[in-house]
Amino acid sequence: MSPLTLTVDAPSHSYPIFIDTHLQAALARELAQYCSRKAAIVTNTTIAPLYLEQVQAACKTAGIDSFTIILPDGEAHKNWETLNLIFDGLLQNHAERSTTLIALGGGVIGDMVGFAAATYQRGAPFIQIPTTLLSQVDSSVGGKTAINHPLGKNMIGAFYQPQAVFIGLDSLKTLPEREFAAGMAEVIKYALLGDVEFLSYLENHMDAIQAQDAQALRHIIGHCCQMKADIVAEDEKEHGRRALLNLGHTFGHAIETEMGYGVWLHGEAVAAGMVLACRLSEQLGNISTADSQRAIDLIARAQLPVDAPTFAFATWLEHMQHDKKVVNGEMRFVALQQLGAAYMVKGITAADLRTVVPHA
Amino acid sequence: MSPLTLTVDAPSHSYPIFIDTHLQAALARELAQYCSRKAAIVTNTTIAPLYLEQVQAACKTAGIDSFTIILPDGEAHKNWETLNLIFDGLLQNHAERSTTLIALGGGVIGDMVGFAAATYQRGAPFIQIPTTLLSQVDSSVGGKTAINHPLGKNMIGAFYQPQAVFIGLDSLKTLPEREFAAGMAEVIKYALLGDVEFLSYLENHMDAIQAQDAQALRHIIGHCCQMKADIVAEDEKEHGRRALLNLGHTFGHAIETEMGYGVWLHGEAVAAGMVLACRLSEQLGNISTADSQRAIDLIARAQLPVDAPTFAFATWLEHMQHDKKVVNGEMRFVALQQLGAAYMVKGITAADLRTVVPHA
Repeated sequence: MSPLTLTVDAPSHSYPIFIDTHLQAALARELAQYCSRKAAIVTNTTIAPLYLEQVQAACKTAGIDSFTIILPDGEAHKNWETLNLIFDGLLQNHAERSTTLIALGGGVIGDMVGFAAATYQRGAPFIQIPTTLLSQVDSSVGGKTAINHPLGKNMIGAFYQPQAVFIGLDSLKTLPEREFAAGMAEVIKYALLGDVEFLSYLENHMDAIQAQDAQALRHIIGHCCQMKADIVAEDEKEHGRRALLNLGHTFGHAIETEMGYGVWLHGEAVAAGMVLACRLSEQLGNISTADSQRAIDLIARAQLPVDAPTFAFATWLEHMQHDKKVVNGEMRFVALQQLGAAYMVKGITAADLRTVVPHA
Repeated sequence: MSPLTLTVDAPSHSYPIFIDTHLQAALARELAQYCSRKAAIVTNTTIAPLYLEQVQAACKTAGIDSFTIILPDGEAHKNWETLNLIFDGLLQNHAERSTTLIALGGGVIGDMVGFAAATYQRGAPFIQIPTTLLSQVDSSVGGKTAINHPLGKNMIGAFYQPQAVFIGLDSLKTLPEREFAAGMAEVIKYALLGDVEFLSYLENHMDAIQAQDAQALRHIIGHCCQMKADIVAEDEKEHGRRALLNLGHTFGHAIETEMGYGVWLHGEAVAAGMVLACRLSEQLGNISTADSQRAIDLIARAQLPVDAPTFAFATWLEHMQHDKKVVNGEMRFVALQQLGAAYMVKGITAADLRTVVPHA
C-alpha cells in the first residue's frame, strides 16, 4: 500500500503528516529532513520495549545523535511532576534550544512532550510519532499541547506545532483492544461533527476496522487527519470553528477529572460525552431520538461506553464552569444541528443540563 | 511632567508602554482599554501592601471585576511550586481563557505571571505593571517569560507578549537601594551593548539618577524601553540581535544558579557578569584595559559588585554548557567589539574562559 502524505497548513507553521504501513519506512525516508542533529526521544515504559529500538536505529541511520527519556505510562502521570522528568533529562543531557524532542507514544506522551518542547528554553523543535489510534487521528495533529491540573484537564498548555508527524499503521497491532476502542471515539467524533457520509462509511466498515484491515485503517486515519488539518489551517488557536472538535469533550473532561485521571480512558469519556451531547441536541430540538440512537449504536459497536457515570448535579456544574469554552461565566457546548453538523450553543442553563446528565 | 507612550511592534503582537510620573494616572487613563472585564491581579507579599489597593481601585473604576493572588517574594520562589499557586488561584476563581492576568511587581512576578498567562488554558491575556527599576527597563518589555529549573535559570518559559505595560515612576520611591542598584545593572547593560552616548549620559548623570531625579529617571527608563522595543521588533524570538541583550548574563546566570537563586540579585550577578564580559573582550583584543575600567567605574558608582565569586573552574564550565546560547555544543558569549557595540562571539574555548573567570 502506498504511503500517504498530508500537509497541515497552520498559520504559525506548515508541516507534513506521513502515513505509512510501516513506521520504519516513513522514518527511513523522511526523518533526516525534519530532525536536528541532536534529538531526545521521549517515550514511556509501555512503548519503549515495543518501538524505542526502531526509532533509535532510525536516528542512527540518519546521523542524528539521540538520547532517551522514559516516563511512567498513563493519564494519571500527565502532570507537572512527569513534565519535570523531561526537563531534568534534557538538562542532564545538555539538550540545546535546537535539540529536537521526539514524542514516541500515545496522546499523553504527545501532549506532554509537545508542551515540554513549547517551553524548554522558550521553544525547541519537536516531532510526533503517535503509536495509538487516538493520537494518530487526533491529538498528534494541530499543535494542542498540555498537562492536567487537579482542577481541570489540559488546563495548562500551549499551541505549538510539531515539525512533522510520523504515523505507522503497524504500531496499532500492539495496541490493547480497549485503547483501540478509545481511539475510535475520536474517529466517530469527526463523523458526527462534520461529515455524515463518513458516518455511513463507519457504519458500513466497522467490522473491517475492528479487524484492523489496512485499507480501512488508512482511510479513517487519513480522513480524520485531513479534517483536522483543514480546521487547524482555518482556526489554529480555537477562536471559532476549531472548538467544534471538542464535541463530547466538555462532558468527557468532567468524567475524566471527577473519576480520577486514567480511570476512564480519554476516548471512553468522550464516547459517553458524545451521547450526552446528542441528548442535549435532542432537547434543543435539533435532532431526533432516532438520530441519537444511530450515534449510540455506532459508539456501542466500537466497544465504547454509552452511559456516563452518575455524579451529584453540583459536581457536574462545577466541572462545566472550569471548561475552557466558558466566556463571561456563560457555559458553551458543542451540540449537533444534525448528524454530521456541529455548532456552538451558548446560553445553556443549569436547568437545561439537569435533564441531560445522569445525577443522583 | 508629561506622560510618555512607546510602542513595541513585536511581529506577534503590537502593544504600548505607558510611562507616567504616577502609576495611578496611567491606569486611570488607559487600563479599561487594555484589560478584559475580569482580571486576576497577581503580586507578592512585599508589593501587596504598597500598590495592590491602587490597582484594585483602578480596576473597580474601569468596571473590571478583579480578584487577587498573592505569592511569596523572591527569585528563590520563581519555580513551578509558585507558578502552580497562580494556576490554583485562577481555577478556584473560575478564571477564563479571556481573563486578564495583571502582573504587579518586579522581574520575578512579571516573568512568572507572563508564563502563567502564556500557558493558562493555552494562552490568556496579560498586563505588566513593573514596580522595580529592573523590570521597568528590561524584563517587563519584550515578552520573555520563564521560571527557573534547579539546573538552570529561566530554562522553562515562552515568548509571550503582554497587552500593555504600565510604568509609574512613583513606584521606585519604595524600592530598597539594593534593588534600585540591581536595576541600574540592566541600564548600564544597554549603554555597553549598544549606545556609547548613553554611556556618557549615565556617567554625567549618575548622581541625579541615584537621587531619583524624575527627569533623569524618565530619560533612562524611556531610553532603555525604546532600545528594547527596537530590538524586539527586529528579532522577537532571539534568532539574532536580541541575544546581545544577554551581555553579562551567561556569567550572571552561572553566579545566580551556583550561589542559589536569590542570594545574589539578578542585577548584581549581571553587573559582575558584565565585568567578566569586558575581560573576555579585552582578551579577544577588542577593548583596552582602560575601556574595561570605564565600565567597572560606572558599575561601581551604581553601587554594584564588580567582582564575581570564585568557583571551581569545572563549576563555571558546567553552567556555561547549560546556557541557552549553546549551539551544537559550542559555547557562545556576548562580547564587546568596543564600548557601546556588542557582538556574539563563537568558538570560545575552556582555555579562553580559564583566564577570565575567578576560579580556585
